[in-house]
Formats: sequence, C-alpha cells, structure tokens
Amino acid sequence: MTVAINLASKFASFEAQWTPKIIGEVNDCDVKVAKLNGAFVWHHHDEADELFLVVRGRMTMRFRDRSVEVGEGELIIVPRGVEHLPVAEDEVHVLLFEPKGTLNTGSARGERTVEDPERL
Amino acid sequence: MTVAINLASKFASFEAQWTPKIIGEVNDCDVKVAKLNGAFVWHHHDEADELFLVVRGRMTMRFRDRSVEVGEGELIIVPRGVEHLPVAEDEVHVLLFEPKGTLNTGSARGERTVEDPERL
Repeated sequence: MTVAINLASKFASFEAQWTPKIIGEVNDCDVKVAKLNGAFVWHHHDEADELFLVVRGRMTMRFRDRSVEVGEGELIIVPRGVEHLPVAEDEVHVLLFEPKGTLNTGSARGERTVEDPERL
Repeated sequence: MTVAINLASKFASFEAQWTPKIIGEVNDCDVKVAKLNGAFVWHHHDEADELFLVVRGRMTMRFRDRSVEVGEGELIIVPRGVEHLPVAEDEVHVLLFEPKGTLNTGSARGERTVEDPERL
C-alpha cells in the first residue's frame, strides 16, 4: 500500500539517538530516519554512498581534512570510502538514504553498531 | 568536493515547472529537485521506484484506484510498474530519488519528457 509518510510523525515516535530506523525502501536503498546528538565514531562505508538530509537542527560532518556544516533543509552526500564523523551539538533529525544493509558504523563495527534497524 | 547542498537555494535558482534538475548522485540514484503545478501525465516506470519528498506546498499522487495527499514534510514512494499521476493545485517543490537515467514521463514519452536533465 502506497501511503504518504510524515517525517515529523516518524521522528515523534522514538527517542533513541544513534539508532537509525527504516521508514521505506526505494530501489536498492533504505530510507531511514535518525536522531543524532554528540559525536559518533569515525568510519567509512566501503561500497555505499550515504546521503544525510537535515530535517531539523544542524550538524557538522567532519572529514579528516576539513568539516562541513549542514543546516536544516540541507543535505550532504558522503561518497563511499571517505572517512567521516557526524557531530551534533544539539539533537538533530536526519533522513538517510543508503544501500540496504549499510551498517551505521560502516568499517567501525562496535558497541554503537545497529545490526538490524527497526522498521517504523 | 563534498559540500552541503541547500535545497531552498536550489529551488530559488530556476523557475521552470516539470523540469527536474539533478543536484546530486548517491549510489545508482540521482537526487533531483522539481517544481510541479497542475496535472502531469499518467505514466509508470518499468524498473524504477520513485521517491517524492514534498519540501514546500502539497500535492496529490493519483493512482488508478485512489489518490494520496502528500503534504510538506511528507514523502511517498511509488513502486516500479505502478501507474501514477502527480497533481498540484499550486506550485509544489519536491525532492526526487530515482535511478540514474529515469525519465520524468517514464512510459509516456512525449512533449513533456526531459531527456537530459540539467545539473544544478
């Protein structure tokens, strides 16, 4: 059943930070939502480009050689293989597009890895 | 160069309706922006799921058996093979995710087909 997916409702339905939730599938990609706050872990994805669209708040995408500020209504595409570290001073709500099965921590599997994201 | 892409700036940079513009690439998909107003043409995409995220305004996605209202901050994923007709009573700004090379008119190639979308 093809329905409209309301982003605000999806974000309102969970509290946990750094735990991406799958809200849809399009071609070979998952559409995910996540709440980020603080610094994540340095990682990269060997075979996945990753798109972050900031729906609320703002974040910094740190790369090894520089940082990019990403504000509300802005998106950033991190190419495969590029090390990155998402950082948010306050809670930020992001929409993610990435190939199915992409781990949130990519190369840096550990305690912050979400192996099997919940579907909302 | 990985930069932040501001959606409002992209929408402010063109006027034409029904002419998708490519603003980024992620995996095998293009990220596009488009301004829609009025009714498009009935069509489907044989091998492409298509995601519409309404950034401003609202639209109706008509299917052969029903219609779905899609408001600001909502998205809809039209599965491959499903006939659909986007309709907007007033101008609506949408972000699109679809496989590279997807034609806006899909199966209904004609005067409204944009063969080679501009890159912004």
